Amino acid sequence: MSKLPVIELFGPTIQGEGSVIGLKTMFVRLYGCDYKCSWCDSAFTWDGSSKSSIQRLTSLEIIDKLNSIGLDGCTYVTISGGNPALYNEPMHDLISELHKRSKKIIVETQGSIWKDWFNDVDILTISPKPPSSLMSTDWGILQSIFANLQHSNVSLKVVIFDETDYLYAKKVQSLFPDITLYLQVGNAEVTRSESIAGQLLNKLEWLFNLVINDPEMQTVRVLPQLHTLIWNNERGK
Amino acid sequence: MSKLPVIELFGPTIQGEGSVIGLKTMFVRLYGCDYKCSWCDSAFTWDGSSKSSIQRLTSLEIIDKLNSIGLDGCTYVTISGGNPALYNEPMHDLISELHKRSKKIIVETQGSIWKDWFNDVDILTISPKPPSSLMSTDWGILQSIFANLQHSNVSLKVVIFDETDYLYAKKVQSLFPDITLYLQVGNAEVTRSESIAGQLLNKLEWLFNLVINDPEMQTVRVLPQLHTLIWNNERGK
Repeated sequence: MSKLPVIELFGPTIQGEGSVIGLKTMFVRLYGCDYKCSWCDSAFTWDGSSKSSIQRLTSLEIIDKLNSIGLDGCTYVTISGGNPALYNEPMHDLISELHKRSKKIIVETQGSIWKDWFNDVDILTISPKPPSSLMSTDWGILQSIFANLQHSNVSLKVVIFDETDYLYAKKVQSLFPDITLYLQVGNAEVTRSESIAGQLLNKLEWLFNLVINDPEMQTVRVLPQLHTLIWNNERGK
Repeated sequence: MSKLPVIELFGPTIQGEGSVIGLKTMFVRLYGCDYKCSWCDSAFTWDGSSKSSIQRLTSLEIIDKLNSIGLDGCTYVTISGGNPALYNEPMHDLISELHKRSKKIIVETQGSIWKDWFNDVDILTISPKPPSSLMSTDWGILQSIFANLQHSNVSLKVVIFDETDYLYAKKVQSLFPDITLYLQVGNAEVTRSESIAGQLLNKLEWLFNLVINDPEMQTVRVLPQLHTLIWNNERGK
């Protein structure tokens, strides 16, 4: 059976972001990303610093480990990264085995790679990365992903650090006007361990005011990273 | 034309609660409530302290006033209270006039009174009040409301101050298992004007942990009042 490179398994916890904000979930975090966002809050999934923690696991091994920490009390499983879209057959396996157990699957991916299994997950977030990430968006791929999606529960999410990112989010909205767009304030302090809530709330107020004063942004959702407000940058939460 | 007793008109602002968290909206706050919740954060809508601010307005007058503060840049209008379910004909009027202008309507009501117009609003939140409110829930009425609702976008919301409230929320979930239930941490400091974010986030972490450790609560959504984190108890935000 094919294997996935797993770097973290934890939960139950509360989802902090986007369309799934506030939802109880287990987390499976995969190693490997095709991006290297300047402000990535999970750089250990691609920068080599935690390579020794990678476990190569089959879907049944992953489910065993999830069972041992509380999967039976949790309907949702978030498969995160890195970019889960790097993997094909083992993702099909894991999704199928979780569905057999009546679990629902949440995936977030940046929209740089298409995989057929996107249509099999229960809640999908496509999160293209704005200019502050120093990554560049392949708009053709992003458009082909939305053309291929047959999904009733997909949303877009853009992290906003500055006004250039905000203009990028407006372009995303204009390209995909029928998809709910979530704006999330960026966390510029991904390595600080002390409380960053005050700073994040100030940034959220700034983003609220941008949207409030912009007649072209009428249906976006503006949200914080809830888990960061509560648990700062603590891993495994 | 029939009139509504309006005590506040403001916006655009960002919705802070439940299924509409993060959404840009105008607010129309109506005077009058059949409840007197012990911790009500809008007691001026029923305790008489702001009676001199009530304006009796037709739906066209309300829309004129909303236009003058930015309705054209805002798709959503929240009609709040007090309890908007106290009013019948003027609510029909207002909903109809807003829909003619392609606006979408958000209403929250405690589920103590049924009105036919519930089925005409775009997003409806039913928020039965837990024991800490010192109100008592008429479960028969609540069940008849859900029996009458023909609505694709309805959710439940319960404010949680303590473990007794949490048990009440579990009863709500067990009675209406197919309706998404939002749990919201109560704000015990509705009269403080200084920052209450730290305290609210501590309370949110407490509620997160209750849900995380409760295998019977798998699909609830746990959220803060976002506007209170940002703007404390300021009115008109």
